[in-house]
Amino acid sequence: MPTVHGYAATRASAKLTPFSFERRALRDDDVAIDIRFCGICHTDIHLTRDAWGFSMFPMVPGHEITGIVTAVGPKVTRFAVGDRVGVGCFVDSCTTCATRDVDREQYLPGIVLTYNGLEPGSVTPTYGGYSESIVVKEGYVLSIPERLPLDAAAPLLCAGVTMYSPLRRWKIGPGAKVAVVGMGGLGHVGIKLARAMGAEVTALGRSVAKQEDAFRLGAARYIATSDVGSFEKLAGTFDLILSTVSANLDWSAWLGLLGIDGTFVSLGMPDQAMTVSPAPLIVGRRSLAGSYMGSIKETQEMLAFCAEHGIVADIETVGIDDVDAAYERVLASDVRYRFVIDVASSFSAKRY
Amino acid sequence: MPTVHGYAATRASAKLTPFSFERRALRDDDVAIDIRFCGICHTDIHLTRDAWGFSMFPMVPGHEITGIVTAVGPKVTRFAVGDRVGVGCFVDSCTTCATRDVDREQYLPGIVLTYNGLEPGSVTPTYGGYSESIVVKEGYVLSIPERLPLDAAAPLLCAGVTMYSPLRRWKIGPGAKVAVVGMGGLGHVGIKLARAMGAEVTALGRSVAKQEDAFRLGAARYIATSDVGSFEKLAGTFDLILSTVSANLDWSAWLGLLGIDGTFVSLGMPDQAMTVSPAPLIVGRRSLAGSYMGSIKETQEMLAFCAEHGIVADIETVGIDDVDAAYERVLASDVRYRFVIDVASSFSAKRY
Repeated sequence: MPTVHGYAATRASAKLTPFSFERRALRDDDVAIDIRFCGICHTDIHLTRDAWGFSMFPMVPGHEITGIVTAVGPKVTRFAVGDRVGVGCFVDSCTTCATRDVDREQYLPGIVLTYNGLEPGSVTPTYGGYSESIVVKEGYVLSIPERLPLDAAAPLLCAGVTMYSPLRRWKIGPGAKVAVVGMGGLGHVGIKLARAMGAEVTALGRSVAKQEDAFRLGAARYIATSDVGSFEKLAGTFDLILSTVSANLDWSAWLGLLGIDGTFVSLGMPDQAMTVSPAPLIVGRRSLAGSYMGSIKETQEMLAFCAEHGIVADIETVGIDDVDAAYERVLASDVRYRFVIDVASSFSAKRY
Repeated sequence: MPTVHGYAATRASAKLTPFSFERRALRDDDVAIDIRFCGICHTDIHLTRDAWGFSMFPMVPGHEITGIVTAVGPKVTRFAVGDRVGVGCFVDSCTTCATRDVDREQYLPGIVLTYNGLEPGSVTPTYGGYSESIVVKEGYVLSIPERLPLDAAAPLLCAGVTMYSPLRRWKIGPGAKVAVVGMGGLGHVGIKLARAMGAEVTALGRSVAKQEDAFRLGAARYIATSDVGSFEKLAGTFDLILSTVSANLDWSAWLGLLGIDGTFVSLGMPDQAMTVSPAPLIVGRRSLAGSYMGSIKETQEMLAFCAEHGIVADIETVGIDDVDAAYERVLASDVRYRFVIDVASSFSAKRY
């Protein structure tokens, strides 16, 4: 089994340090991938700091992976050596049903996360994309369209599909009024995607600092939520609000921004229960909902959509040694809009 | 303007007493209706007791009205004298838009409730169906199909469409797993409607007392919510839960009964904020929603559906003098399943 170099958190909140481990030997339906880039997702920070209480250490984070195929098992049919590929949030899914639920496998309990998971049927931890290479079952490998560069496409594998999936689920199309709350890694891609689907997009951020960017990304309107009058002005406006933040919001106030039949979808996980006044739900048939990642099928569709519309993430590339500093800047909202680790350069520059 | 005899609450929580008032003279697009039957809706009790703080007195309740057309204005095209008709929860809707929003007018602020409302553009109160006759604009009058008896059809005008509307909105069809919470006026019709749409229906009530009825109404399963193990057994089961109760439930526990993409719809208005754990929403793409009445178009569709499937309410007929006693029995859940006032007999038996 090949030894792989990566970076790991060895315990909660530890700085990331070099870590060598073994990837599994290639199985018949496996694809071996030389990792070129890996996005830094906010989840990486939550998990390396054990914010949700289910972290396993040592942990090699990273689930926005792009790279090049270096080997394929004999039963692999869709990929060949040299192909440009990606790996997202999970590398296997529920296998208890006779047929894979390709439309919503991400919600099934059998899902195997790309890192901080366990290999199916074993106690071997999964390790993510802050590493030289990865071995993934063919069915969980994405093809990256030629038009998309491997660096700026990497964040699409998590941030991109996490926004794309609810936009599709709630049938956003021309003329729909969509709000995107939070202009970070998810939000900025969400604005681009919703705009490309024909929606009239309103971006909502904490301050006016990102207003100009919002317009450049495709928003028709930017609202600083610090402006106390904005909730009154926008009452009854939106068909869909996609919230990328994990803050404990004033949910009833936000529901008031929805039009009839509107839906507020939380993509972030607040750490407290949501307290909701029933009236805006009932007298307006509004919904409060959540959404989580996207299926592999949907991720591949999203990549095709992004290729068609020329959508990638706005990125800042860093070396693997800069990850801890990058984490601090993510927490300070000081990145426009996604850090991507230049994995290939980082490791090729090192001596082992 | 014709003087009409009815029964009114003259102040909050007062017993209903005889009350004479004037209906408006017939306008060009009005239909005059001799009221035969009027269902007793739980809302009548809430409003006569000013439970929500916006009651106006004197109040003639009643919004589940059936009767016979006695006169039509010269511009009325769809109704003629002698027609069997109904009137539901509202008698006019928002008129500020160029086109009537026929699919969701019930959510627009301009709606004019059948009672406890104001005639459009005036300060004249609207009076409901606990009275001999009513005058309603043609566009808000329903045609009652021949197959439906006027007494047992009356509750369809509110209870029926309040259940039908969310079943359609959330696209319930063959094989869908639907739960109906509460086996009262709404719930018992909801079971029939969902079953007729092909759903597998689970009825949930407080005790096992109504289990036999639930099966007769079309439920495949009856669960007493007092059975503490039931939540565990039913975890992840339902596509749609329609809750007809106004109780302050353990919302997170109820959301746990939904499958992936499932929706919990509250039709009752709890008097406290709903506290919801975000995890079941996000990691399962579930929704918490509300719904309220139905449009006139939808009500007419519902009546056709009920005629096709032989669905009416299970009723107990009472005289107008028995309404206060009936209210007490409704509050004690002691009716299977809807009281209907025999309006015509009640008033014809009186001397004025």
